[in-house]
Amino acid sequence: MESVKIGMIGYKFMGKAHSHAYRDLPMFFPKQLRPEMKVICGRNSEGVAQAAAQFGWKEYTTDWKNLILRDDIDVIDINAPSNVHKEIALAAAKAGKHIFCEKPLALTLQDSRDMLEAAEAAGVKHMVGFNYRFTPAVMLAKKLIDEGRLGEIVHFRAWFLQDWIVDPAFPLVWRLQKDVAGSGSHGDLGAHLIDMAHYLIGDMTEVVGMNETFIKERPLPAAMSGLSAKASKDQAAHKGPVTVDDATLFMTRFDNGALGSFEATRFAAGHRCTNSFEINGSKGSVLFDFERLNELQVYFVDDADDVQGFRRVLATDAAHAYSDVWWPAGHTIGYEHTFIHEVVELMEAIREDRQPAPNFKDGVKCQQVLEAVDLSIAERRWVQVSDL
Amino acid sequence: MESVKIGMIGYKFMGKAHSHAYRDLPMFFPKQLRPEMKVICGRNSEGVAQAAAQFGWKEYTTDWKNLILRDDIDVIDINAPSNVHKEIALAAAKAGKHIFCEKPLALTLQDSRDMLEAAEAAGVKHMVGFNYRFTPAVMLAKKLIDEGRLGEIVHFRAWFLQDWIVDPAFPLVWRLQKDVAGSGSHGDLGAHLIDMAHYLIGDMTEVVGMNETFIKERPLPAAMSGLSAKASKDQAAHKGPVTVDDATLFMTRFDNGALGSFEATRFAAGHRCTNSFEINGSKGSVLFDFERLNELQVYFVDDADDVQGFRRVLATDAAHAYSDVWWPAGHTIGYEHTFIHEVVELMEAIREDRQPAPNFKDGVKCQQVLEAVDLSIAERRWVQVSDL
Amino acid sequence: MESVKIGMIGYKFMGKAHSHAYRDLPMFFPKQLRPEMKVICGRNSEGVAQAAAQFGWKEYTTDWKNLILRDDIDVIDINAPSNVHKEIALAAAKAGKHIFCEKPLALTLQDSRDMLEAAEAAGVKHMVGFNYRFTPAVMLAKKLIDEGRLGEIVHFRAWFLQDWIVDPAFPLVWRLQKDVAGSGSHGDLGAHLIDMAHYLIGDMTEVVGMNETFIKERPLPAAMSGLSAKASKDQAAHKGPVTVDDATLFMTRFDNGALGSFEATRFAAGHRCTNSFEINGSKGSVLFDFERLNELQVYFVDDADDVQGFRRVLATDAAHAYSDVWWPAGHTIGYEHTFIHEVVELMEAIREDRQPAPNFKDGVKCQQVLEAVDLSIAERRWVQVSDL
Amino acid sequence: MESVKIGMIGYKFMGKAHSHAYRDLPMFFPKQLRPEMKVICGRNSEGVAQAAAQFGWKEYTTDWKNLILRDDIDVIDINAPSNVHKEIALAAAKAGKHIFCEKPLALTLQDSRDMLEAAEAAGVKHMVGFNYRFTPAVMLAKKLIDEGRLGEIVHFRAWFLQDWIVDPAFPLVWRLQKDVAGSGSHGDLGAHLIDMAHYLIGDMTEVVGMNETFIKERPLPAAMSGLSAKASKDQAAHKGPVTVDDATLFMTRFDNGALGSFEATRFAAGHRCTNSFEINGSKGSVLFDFERLNELQVYFVDDADDVQGFRRVLATDAAHAYSDVWWPAGHTIGYEHTFIHEVVELMEAIREDRQPAPNFKDGVKCQQVLEAVDLSIAERRWVQVSDL
Repeated sequence: MESVKIGMIGYKFMGKAHSHAYRDLPMFFPKQLRPEMKVICGRNSEGVAQAAAQFGWKEYTTDWKNLILRDDIDVIDINAPSNVHKEIALAAAKAGKHIFCEKPLALTLQDSRDMLEAAEAAGVKHMVGFNYRFTPAVMLAKKLIDEGRLGEIVHFRAWFLQDWIVDPAFPLVWRLQKDVAGSGSHGDLGAHLIDMAHYLIGDMTEVVGMNETFIKERPLPAAMSGLSAKASKDQAAHKGPVTVDDATLFMTRFDNGALGSFEATRFAAGHRCTNSFEINGSKGSVLFDFERLNELQVYFVDDADDVQGFRRVLATDAAHAYSDVWWPAGHTIGYEHTFIHEVVELMEAIREDRQPAPNFKDGVKCQQVLEAVDLSIAERRWVQVSDL
Repeated sequence: MESVKIGMIGYKFMGKAHSHAYRDLPMFFPKQLRPEMKVICGRNSEGVAQAAAQFGWKEYTTDWKNLILRDDIDVIDINAPSNVHKEIALAAAKAGKHIFCEKPLALTLQDSRDMLEAAEAAGVKHMVGFNYRFTPAVMLAKKLIDEGRLGEIVHFRAWFLQDWIVDPAFPLVWRLQKDVAGSGSHGDLGAHLIDMAHYLIGDMTEVVGMNETFIKERPLPAAMSGLSAKASKDQAAHKGPVTVDDATLFMTRFDNGALGSFEATRFAAGHRCTNSFEINGSKGSVLFDFERLNELQVYFVDDADDVQGFRRVLATDAAHAYSDVWWPAGHTIGYEHTFIHEVVELMEAIREDRQPAPNFKDGVKCQQVLEAVDLSIAERRWVQVSDL
Repeated sequence: MESVKIGMIGYKFMGKAHSHAYRDLPMFFPKQLRPEMKVICGRNSEGVAQAAAQFGWKEYTTDWKNLILRDDIDVIDINAPSNVHKEIALAAAKAGKHIFCEKPLALTLQDSRDMLEAAEAAGVKHMVGFNYRFTPAVMLAKKLIDEGRLGEIVHFRAWFLQDWIVDPAFPLVWRLQKDVAGSGSHGDLGAHLIDMAHYLIGDMTEVVGMNETFIKERPLPAAMSGLSAKASKDQAAHKGPVTVDDATLFMTRFDNGALGSFEATRFAAGHRCTNSFEINGSKGSVLFDFERLNELQVYFVDDADDVQGFRRVLATDAAHAYSDVWWPAGHTIGYEHTFIHEVVELMEAIREDRQPAPNFKDGVKCQQVLEAVDLSIAERRWVQVSDL
Repeated sequence: MESVKIGMIGYKFMGKAHSHAYRDLPMFFPKQLRPEMKVICGRNSEGVAQAAAQFGWKEYTTDWKNLILRDDIDVIDINAPSNVHKEIALAAAKAGKHIFCEKPLALTLQDSRDMLEAAEAAGVKHMVGFNYRFTPAVMLAKKLIDEGRLGEIVHFRAWFLQDWIVDPAFPLVWRLQKDVAGSGSHGDLGAHLIDMAHYLIGDMTEVVGMNETFIKERPLPAAMSGLSAKASKDQAAHKGPVTVDDATLFMTRFDNGALGSFEATRFAAGHRCTNSFEINGSKGSVLFDFERLNELQVYFVDDADDVQGFRRVLATDAAHAYSDVWWPAGHTIGYEHTFIHEVVELMEAIREDRQPAPNFKDGVKCQQVLEAVDLSIAERRWVQVSDL
């Protein structure tokens, strides 16, 4: 089978997840185009060399600009920090490479639109990394909706709950600094919920939001603290301000009339990764929680009246997406499989010469809602999404 | 044990629940004052006579004004339709009777304030029927918060989901007509969530809401349809407009800094009575669902690091509220028990000569938030609760 | 409605549960015969007087023999200790009274057969108190089986798990002494599972069992210890031998070919009252746990292939047994309601002049299996149930 | 890092699972010895060639005897059908290769003992594929037991429930034929439960069992039916007898005094892969279900008395086995990861020059219990495990 040569920029959490997806894909999806793990790129030479060896990349480099210009690269995979997405994507588009960019697409709506425009102008494939779409149980929800089996959708409620910064002694890592991370729970967790809503329900008309930073100051990490110590002698210098939101909530009205509510927080003690949504329609409901990602709770209004109830469907049967390549029914899969499925979509789109889904348009739409919510919070009012 | 003589106005759903509470209380709480089921009152003579016989009241009447003036009545229990609460309560206060009034206290904030003022002026005991407070699992949540075992509270999210009107063919009953019911899901279901928030978290600073009526017209019930048929020959006349909300959502900021989100809906297919909340604090979390009312999910940040997880606590142990009078641990109780506990509180307050909790002040506070949300929806803006 | 006059012997745990059932029945089932709480009887005059007042009995007595002979008594309710069941029942039958006897029917199979024979000879109604049959969710399981919706039954597995004697310091109460209690977990908890199996699946062909007493000696309760102290000065005298089983397991083959497994234990830490069973058939399965008594998990083989899964059915809908008299859908009931439904069956049987179910025949059948298991354990072999 | 050269015999379900483990191990466990996917072997040349390409093996062969003799092979991985395990293992031991053999180790206890003896005589490492031991949640259970946090263990109950042959139209595949498969649910599913019991609780003293084949005849698969059609013209010839058990149950007494019950069935409608156990000890309990393999339910007797309850522990935290190499807390893993962990153990054992666990001794012990149960069923009596 023909191969697709990948050049990947970034090698941390997402770099590892993407690498694994490329590595496993050919074994489980042998009929797909074969991603070839050509070059991995990072700023730290030692770090990227080790990652290349560990993850199975043929080459490594610290020069991303040169990587983009190489003739033997088909796809640029961008999972470097968000603040460099735009520059790399524009260069990749210019060089005629397909682009697979992690979410968030960019730090601002305008940047994400520039990226989409560049990719469209260049005629390349573009994809954005909303991996949760590729959970088989989520795809079952999508199928039920598309086939009308839930009827008219009236409610969508979603919450992404984590708890890794509940402790005030947790240090001021880069994810808690706005200039580096762009956003806090809103852009990190809320973005996934927003894309899920777009995927399953459709566009949003208007939003109103609120947010909070519960812990205003945190201890500086060792390295940062060291630097600060030179400039100051008092103890206070060892703390720094948290400049992103710890939690963001918003409500929305969808174009189709459904009502939506969203909550993203890193302060929900006991929740490691509760990425969850419920959908109510006139004919049924579904409920999903990523901590039990193989399951979808499904309810049908038309079930016999003495046996109505939410069904715990284990989405590992032959009837479920991707199930044929994995293990027998009931033998569950995990987080990393969402990335494998995601890359399968990328490979299929390239072979079929179509845009993958989700692509930069979805990334832009997500960014639009994120900013609409931010504006709503800043101005304490309802904001029309289309105004942005 | 001394008895407290009850005169009850209303005999339908809540009348039945209250009657049962009075009936069972002496058997399980023999040390409390004994409620004496003296007189039951209703507009329909035949109906109230049957209720009296069935529920165990000594007398019945259709004249509530006279009932209130009787010397042999200590407490007036009001569970007639909401639109008559005020008139009855004012009369009862004037007559020097203690008042136990179902929620919502009144149709408007002003009315509820008048009722509180009258009761306070008369120096009588006053109680409002937020029965869900009296679920032992909820009382455990309250205890954990009060003892500081959840730390500083940062999140409260609550949802009351029902599904009894999902079918568009469901008729236009009185609960769907604003002039009779006052409100839809907001006042009916949301009111319970709001009181729960007041009970567990505290006062709210500001709110912003949204609502929707998904089915705008419904078939008239047989009786109403019959009337309409006289005035009109066309088929359309057999439908009438739904004038209350099917669903209301709102967000809030509590005085203590916590963020809150609320959703009340009758359009959540598969949910019969999901009256549920989750609270996250700096030291732990709790999760409750009334469909499993004997259980509270509890999480503690300080649990040993290899066995952290939500505990399914069955609130039927000796350590739990009211458990000593019921059955052995693990032998669960049901919906009706919340009313028995509620009446125990009323009996204790009378004996101890103090106001019961929740009382009319809580009813007023709930009404204040309900109206603040309505105003927020009408004017599409954040509303300060204290402005009302 | 005509009344049925009850004379009840026993006034502790089961006496309270039965009294409450009589007390509540007329309010919720006004069309049934009305049980009249005439006389309560117990050995301790002070205790039974207090119980009479608290539970609502008109009279009390300490003379059960006289009670049985009274003309103004229709039903003798026996919930005194098991070792007196037989004598009372024989006398009641002789006096022509209907008999409602708590489980276990007697201490031995022979005794229970004598009781059945006496009741049949006297032509009176006889009922045995297997209250768990009357849980609406269990009745739904029965309905599904009877209607063939689970197909041919192949598996029944049941376990009744409690944990109240896990602590070795828990004292040697009467339930742990064979001469008083007759049996330990086997007769106390296992008996309920056996009746459930008879009710839902049918008769058993053969059994093989095992049991264990994990804690061989326990501290004597204060009273007993006091007595012992007189006879001995050493510390050992303050302990006494546990003479019943802490846990009993057995396997069975049903007459219809299904395989069964049973476990009754008081040593399952964390389980307060896990009275649970699962049934697998060729067309579906059901799963029940009494700690969530309003729910039945139901699975159907013929569900559409992408939405197969156990449904959590809340047995509180209009389609479920007894639901019309209780609260709206989703408003759950508790342990005590099983007794109310049980007494409804008794009242109906009396009115319809038929034997109630379960009756003494079911009590005998249960005893037969209990003894077959005991014999199997004693002789370490399979035992044919019909051999006993 | 030094590599360990693997020669693998077999390439179907388990061959795929093992291949994936070898493939992924170096990426996630870079400090371990690196398994080198040298040669894959199978009987069908075309099939094995395709598997080699798909799974990533360097070479393939159909000559397993020659493979075993190659100098450039360190480990022989046997996942061919069970009836050839012995011959291959003996040859591999003779050739001085380490052996990693799938369960069941052999078709008979004697064969498995021969294999153990041969491996010990040759001084090679030997491992048996009880992969479920390597689930992090199961390893947490093991840790809690070993640290005494559950106290003295009194109960172990386990059930492996599947439903893939409930339909009588399901064909007579090789797994349902004794001469090929050796055993039905007992050896296939029960074997896993038995090893889990050995791992977590310890040795068993005695057993008593029962089994059943619910569907006695099944349609021959297309190929077999074709052959049969030549020999016979009647319709009956298109069916063949099922010669293995559909379900096997047994009870046991452990050497440490705990009681055990086991059930393995392929007739539990709704259960795809419910490989589950519960353990009760004097200080706590644990409950595991492989359909939710990332979770362990944990209960402690010593928890504060108002918050006692089973905790849902997500075994993905830093405190859990293998968690450091996978994803952040709450990002779950799947079935295939148990094999990766299993191979990590094999690599560590080779590097540390010790026997891996579980090894052939565990395979023998499992076989001993399987046969003791079979004997118990055949002779309808309790069997001492040590008698075999």
